[in-house]
This record gives sequence, structure tokens and C-alpha cells, in this order.
Amino acid sequence: LHQQRSRVGLIGAPFAKGQPRPGVDRGPDLIRAAGLLNRLQEQGNEVKDYGNLTFEELEEDEPVGGVKHVRAVGGANQRLSEAVRAVKMDGRVSVMLGGDHSLAIGSIHGHAAAVGPLSVVWVDAHADVNTALTTPTGNLHGQPMSFLLHELRSKIPVLPNFSWMTPCVSAKDLVYIGLRDLDPGEHYIVRLLGAKVFSMTEVDRLGIGRVMEETCDHLCTRKKPVHLSYDVDAIDPAVTPATGTPVPGGLTYREGVYITEQLCQTGLLSGVDMVEVNPLRGPTEHAIQSTVNTAVDLLLGCFGRRREGNHPSDFLLPGP
Amino acid sequence: LHQQRSRVGLIGAPFAKGQPRPGVDRGPDLIRAAGLLNRLQEQGNEVKDYGNLTFEELEEDEPVGGVKHVRAVGGANQRLSEAVRAVKMDGRVSVMLGGDHSLAIGSIHGHAAAVGPLSVVWVDAHADVNTALTTPTGNLHGQPMSFLLHELRSKIPVLPNFSWMTPCVSAKDLVYIGLRDLDPGEHYIVRLLGAKVFSMTEVDRLGIGRVMEETCDHLCTRKKPVHLSYDVDAIDPAVTPATGTPVPGGLTYREGVYITEQLCQTGLLSGVDMVEVNPLRGPTEHAIQSTVNTAVDLLLGCFGRRREGNHPSDFLLPGP
Amino acid sequence: LHQQRSRVGLIGAPFAKGQPRPGVDRGPDLIRAAGLLNRLQEQGNEVKDYGNLTFEELEEDEPVGGVKHVRAVGGANQRLSEAVRAVKMDGRVSVMLGGDHSLAIGSIHGHAAAVGPLSVVWVDAHADVNTALTTPTGNLHGQPMSFLLHELRSKIPVLPNFSWMTPCVSAKDLVYIGLRDLDPGEHYIVRLLGAKVFSMTEVDRLGIGRVMEETCDHLCTRKKPVHLSYDVDAIDPAVTPATGTPVPGGLTYREGVYITEQLCQTGLLSGVDMVEVNPLRGPTEHAIQSTVNTAVDLLLGCFGRRREGNHPSDFLLPGP
Ligand SMILES: [Mn+2]
Ligand SMILES: [Mn+2]
Ligand SMILES: [Mn+2]
Ligand SMILES: [Mn+2]
Ligand SMILES: [Mn+2]
Ligand SMILES: [Mn+2]
Repeated sequence: LHQQRSRVGLIGAPFAKGQPRPGVDRGPDLIRAAGLLNRLQEQGNEVKDYGNLTFEELEEDEPVGGVKHVRAVGGANQRLSEAVRAVKMDGRVSVMLGGDHSLAIGSIHGHAAAVGPLSVVWVDAHADVNTALTTPTGNLHGQPMSFLLHELRSKIPVLPNFSWMTPCVSAKDLVYIGLRDLDPGEHYIVRLLGAKVFSMTEVDRLGIGRVMEETCDHLCTRKKPVHLSYDVDAIDPAVTPATGTPVPGGLTYREGVYITEQLCQTGLLSGVDMVEVNPLRGPTEHAIQSTVNTAVDLLLGCFGRRREGNHPSDFLLPGP
Repeated sequence: LHQQRSRVGLIGAPFAKGQPRPGVDRGPDLIRAAGLLNRLQEQGNEVKDYGNLTFEELEEDEPVGGVKHVRAVGGANQRLSEAVRAVKMDGRVSVMLGGDHSLAIGSIHGHAAAVGPLSVVWVDAHADVNTALTTPTGNLHGQPMSFLLHELRSKIPVLPNFSWMTPCVSAKDLVYIGLRDLDPGEHYIVRLLGAKVFSMTEVDRLGIGRVMEETCDHLCTRKKPVHLSYDVDAIDPAVTPATGTPVPGGLTYREGVYITEQLCQTGLLSGVDMVEVNPLRGPTEHAIQSTVNTAVDLLLGCFGRRREGNHPSDFLLPGP
Repeated sequence: LHQQRSRVGLIGAPFAKGQPRPGVDRGPDLIRAAGLLNRLQEQGNEVKDYGNLTFEELEEDEPVGGVKHVRAVGGANQRLSEAVRAVKMDGRVSVMLGGDHSLAIGSIHGHAAAVGPLSVVWVDAHADVNTALTTPTGNLHGQPMSFLLHELRSKIPVLPNFSWMTPCVSAKDLVYIGLRDLDPGEHYIVRLLGAKVFSMTEVDRLGIGRVMEETCDHLCTRKKPVHLSYDVDAIDPAVTPATGTPVPGGLTYREGVYITEQLCQTGLLSGVDMVEVNPLRGPTEHAIQSTVNTAVDLLLGCFGRRREGNHPSDFLLPGP
């Protein structure tokens, strides 16, 4: 167990059209302002910031079969997919700072385009696996996994600005952690396809220690590069209130960090999303800072921070 | 593991004389106003609301050997026992919304009168098993289990308005969860009689997963219908502050919900109490809402809500 | 498992020069004002309060090689060591109320001087094991264990007012619980010397139940008298915010209390420190009270309080 060091590539994705609440596009700059780059570097990582993506403003983007902002989401994710692919081609672990969770479509697609089949660890209060035909809200941040799963290909209608992508994840390579608010269609899909699910009920039953032991055993058996897609609403709203769809009974700060520490130690982490930080949803400045600082700590956990501490391998204890 | 559906009978019991603090009689209407009925129905349950009981105002109700409001508590519970018995005779799971915890006397008595011997799961910071002769306060909400246990029959004095009842629960059928504030006499009784006790110490040691595994094994071995008596003060005061006798170091929201999910899955739940919600004890509107919403979520957990989600057995995934 | 009763000797050490923030010298009086003595007595303990130590004001105390207030800290700890030794000679369990954590030097030294080799259980967010040559801050409250460990003797420079002491603890007798913020030198030392470490990562992995099972097995195997040095910053800042160096992701109130319950039951507790309560660091009166009340509850747990309750061995259940 020695210090993990990584080459990291940061991409900001200030995009909010996968859901209706303004503010989530401010996530990337807030997370940077909390010192992410310096702190990743202090931990021995080599970090390159690719800056923020810019996204086209579309004149016409009427709902398609009830699904909102289809063209904007499709176009933004095409751009993001290319950006993540480029970061991976540079030999870096990609870190995508959202923005809303619809961005996982491009982030995971671009990651897979560069490295091939992935395992996906999805940490979220929600499964985000509604199809364009089951979504109760029409918001695409509740649907990204449905676009990404091979097994759902026949269930997804043709949508404008989505022709650039094809599914790239198998359900047996998907692990969910933290679920506690699923629509009936989502529950049906998750059960039908046999994804590995640790809802909050399993976290309560097994404890986070066994949840991560089983998760990491699964990942290490399959040996694929791991994409971690972390929705900050997985953590309890007492800790991360500044988010669009908070749900009571979430992961503790400690459980959230433990997940990242354990994934880091698999040595398989190859891409990370940190999404749904929305400062306009925080009731107080303290609430916003708690949310942003937690997002930073989760990212630090992905890149070598360990609560037991670290020391350089050449450390020498001075004497008088 | 398919969707549980139940026929539910709601009884409101706006009664506060088992303890000295005004406000706990507002519990039933607050819990209803938070949407309990609709949400139980949305989960597939068939719900009948029997409305609120009314209780006589007594002119004369002087303490008896230090025990306060004996006649009022005895009379209210006689009425409640009949009401719960009627709900059970209608073939419904009874849900009694308190009011203070002295109401468990009538609720459990009426339940047993209809269905015979019960198991009782008592989730509470307190054991509520002082006798009229050991009570340090004279408040009857700290004594209900002493009236109900066969084994304590010889230790209970004759009290006015209690002649309608006889004990109906065996100590080996009683499981306590969440205890953390017991009087010496209560500790003596609980140890003497050998009730199953998961104090907060055991919850910390074993984790809620093993606590509920042992609890449900015990219940399923004994096979009796289960009465769940849930004092909202079992949950930590950070979550449910609006209650009369909060005690630090309580169950988390998640542990509280997990208990209900697991009891629901035994298929044995036959009667439920939700007591000690007192809006006048909440320091803020947010504190009151957190308490009431938690009470509702605990009840939803008793009637089929699962955090991993549910889907109807005839669900069909739509395609384009 | 019967009631533990102890003879307790309280020493107040209103000393703050091991760190830069004023206010931590108010800890002893605040903890007393919250009712510690009465409550220890109500639990059946015999308590003697030795009052507060007084410490010399030094005219000249310039930093020595970057280490601040060396002479004040050395002198205060010499006085404290003698006081603790006297309490132990009186046949009492010593309870030192700090003050900052540099006071553990004198408290542990005096304890060992009276009873011989000790086990030390150090509950803290920090390892406090920097040497005078590795300290990044120069604050002596981050260094006490380095003075106490036999194995570090050759690494500690000669410092003014420290000639009275020699190391008295072996690394194999040291157990850390709650660590989550270590400097690289501290991590190196802890690993090099092989102290037993339960960082927050291990608490998350194993649960506090197994952490204390392993801790108590270790202590009971070694059979030495136990010195518990409890830094209130081990507990999460949501519970104990009024402290100088809070770190997110700490022990819950319940975990903190469980540690004391289990150590009490070993029957080996022989000395206790409760340090780093600083009312001037609490943002509100509620925050200060929560910190102080938690410190009191932790001390009560050390001296026989059990959440499942207690009863005197001669308790008789009254009948009518
Ligand atoms: Mn979510
Ligand atoms: Mn999401
Ligand atoms: Mn209670
Ligand atoms: Mn109760
Ligand atoms: Mn310390
Ligand atoms: Mn500390």
C-alpha cells in the first residue's frame, strides 16, 4: 500500500440542460476555487486542467416525446465525449466536473472510445436509468445510463443529436451504490438486467466495509478500467444540501470518502465524474461550502488521499 | 421479494395525559397532514381512516400513589383497545397515531384481544416498563409495558379505570430496540424477565443489519402476529427533535427506516403505533417537519416502501 | 457484567501554551460546571476533586528550533506529572481535564511513574507524534507521544524544562483510534514503530464493534493498566465543534461513547485525559454546550455508565 500517484486531466462541463434548475453549471468553477488542483498536486499527482467546455446555445430545442432539451444534451455530450477521449489519449485519468448528470453520457462514451470496455461505478441516490419512454419528468439527467447500456439499445428511440453515440457498457459491468429513490421503470430495468445494486438498504445491512469489499472484488475480477460517476446527491443532504434533487437518508461523509479510498486502491480508476453541485440550491453559504468541500474531498480520495496518512518512500526521520 | 400490499386501518389518538407536556395530542393530525394516507395508497395499500378518538375530560383525577392521571389514561386506553380490536376484526393492520406512549396499553391490548398472543417490537430510547410502584416521575407513558407483561401481573397495584384489562404479552415475545435511558427498576425488570434487548450499545456493536437479522429470526421462529410500537424518540434528536423526552445518541434516520423495511418483509406486521410526535417541543418549523416527515417515512417503510424501489408485477418496458 | 464503581481523582489543567488559540484553558471549569462530579457520584463512584493546577508565567520562552513555548510546556507537564502521580498513589483513577493535548506528556508520565508500564489508548483525529524536528507548526500539542515513546528517544533533541522526564511507553502498547489527519513524519513513525492504528478508514471498514473488540483483546492480553487520552476532536465537528483543530469525518457521538463503555468493561482503566475543549472556538452557545456535554458523557462512559442501564445488586422489585 504505497502512495498512489496519477496523471490527471480535468475537464469542466458547465452544463445544466439535463434538468430544470439553474446553477448547476457553476459547479466546475466552484470546485476549482476550493483548491482542487493544488491539493491534487500536493498529493503527488501531475494535473493538467483542460479548462471549461463551451456549449452551443440552440434556438430550437422543443421537447421530443416529452424529453426536454434533447438536442442541447446530445450536442453537449458529443463535445464532452471528444474531450474525454482526448484526455485519455494523453494518458491521463479523466476528471469531468459537472454540470448535471446527463453529462455522464459523453464522459463514459468518450472514456470507452479511448480505452475499450469499462466497469462503471455509479454512486447516486438515483439510478438515472429511465429511458426516453419511461421518464416521468422528461429530464435527461435521469436517463444517462439508459443510453449507455448495450442491453437497452432496442428500447431507446431515435433522438436528434444522439446519432454520434452507441451503447458501450454491459449491465454486468455496472455497480450502483447509494440508491434510494427509483422510479418503477428503473427498478424493473435494474432487476431485469442484473446490475449489481447496493441501495441504502444494503449499505445499512452490510456496512460500507463489506459493500466496498464486494464492489472491489467484482471490479478486480473483471479487470476493466473503472469509470466512477459520482453524483453528489448520493451523500446525505445534511452534508451536501446544495444539489438539485436531494433525498433524505444518504451516505455519510465518511462512507462517501471510503468509497473513493477503496476505488483508488484497486489501481483501476481511469475516469471520474463529479456532478450535480448546484450552489443556487444551498440555503446558506455554509451549506454551499459543505457541498463543494465534500466534492473536493471525494476527488482527493480518488487520487491517493488516505485518512491514515501517507509518507514519501524516501522519508528519513531526522535526529538531533 | 415482491411488493407488499396491505389493508390498513388508521386510528388517531390525540391523547397527552400520560406525560406532562402539552402538544403531543397534535400528532395524529400532523402526521395525516404530511400526506400519510395518499402515500400509503400510492404504495398499493388499501387504507381506511377511522378518524380521531375522543376522550372524556375527567373532573377528578388525583394522583394515585404518585401516578398521575390514572383514570384518564385507563379510560382512554379502554376506548382505544376497543377501537383497535374493531380494526383488527375488519381484517386490517391497525395503525395507531399518538399521542403519548401510554396509549400502547390499549393498542396492544385491543390487538391481542382480536388476534391472540403477539410478538411486540418496542423501538424507543426508553423501556417504558416502570411499574406504578417503581416510576420515578409518575408519568404513565413510562409504564405501559409493565401493564402488558404477564410476568409482572403480581407487581401492579389495583388502579382506577384499569379493571377492564389483563396482561397479554410474554417477556419472551418482547424485543426492544434503541434503548439508551433506563431507570434502575426498568433495567432490573428487563434483565429479570429476559426480554430481548438491543440497546444502542448493541446497535453500535452489531450494526443494524445483524440487529434486525436476529430480531426477524426471533419473530419468524415464534410466528406470532407482530405489534410494532414505535416511539419517535428512538431516532436521534438531530432528526426527530420535536418530542417530549429526547435523548442524545439515537438511531439514525437510515437505521430507523431499515427496522421498518425488515419488519415489513417478515409478513407478520399486524399492528403499529407511532407515538410521541410533539410539535410544541420542536425549536423551529424545520425541526417539526423533520420529525413529522420521519414519522411518515417510518410508517411507509412498514407498508411496502423499499429504498431499492418497487415495480408492479405486470410492468412492461416500452420500446420505440 | 455488574456495575463498575471507581475511586476517581480529578485534576484540572487550565493550560493552553501547547497551541496558539486562547480559550482551551477554560476546559476544566466548563466540564465541571456541566455536572461531572455529581453525575460520577450518582453512578456509584467516589470522587475527589484535586482542583486546578496553577502554572508559572514565564518571562522568557523563545522558540527553540521552531518549537514554541518549550519551557512553559515542559514546566507545566512536570507539575502535572507530580499531581497525577500523587492521585495514583492515593489509589484513584486519575482524570485530567485539559487544556491542550501537550498535557498528555505529564499525565502519562506521572501515571507510569506511579504504576509502571502502561497501555495507552489515544483517541484523536491526530496522532500527535511529531518530534521537535518534524513538527510543521512548532505546536507542542502535536508532539506529546514523541516524548513518551521509548523507541523515539534518540530522535528527540534536548529541550529546556524537559530534563525531568524520560520515555515510558512502548509502541506495542499504543493503540490509536479515530486518526484522519496525519503529517508525513507522523505516518512514517506510526508505521515504523508498529503502533496499532484504527484510523477512520478502519472504523468505516470494520465498524466500531470490531475496532473495540480488537482493541480490548489487545489490552486484555497485555494486562497493563490503561491510560486513555481522549482528544475531543476525535468526535465529528458536527457534535464537538468547540475545539482548536476540527477535522471533518470524525467519530459519531455513539462511537465515541461506545469506546468508553468498552474500555470501562476491561476493568483496566487507570488514568484518563479529556482535552482540547475550547469554548472560544464554538460558533454558538449550542455548539459549546454540545462539545462540553459530549466530553462529560465520554467521562461518564469511562466510569460505569451503560446505555442498557444499571441496577444495584441489591435491587428489590416492589409489589402492592
Ligand atoms: Mn442523483
Ligand atoms: Mn445522478
Ligand atoms: Mn421514549
Ligand atoms: Mn416510549
Ligand atoms: Mn490531540
Ligand atoms: Mn486532535
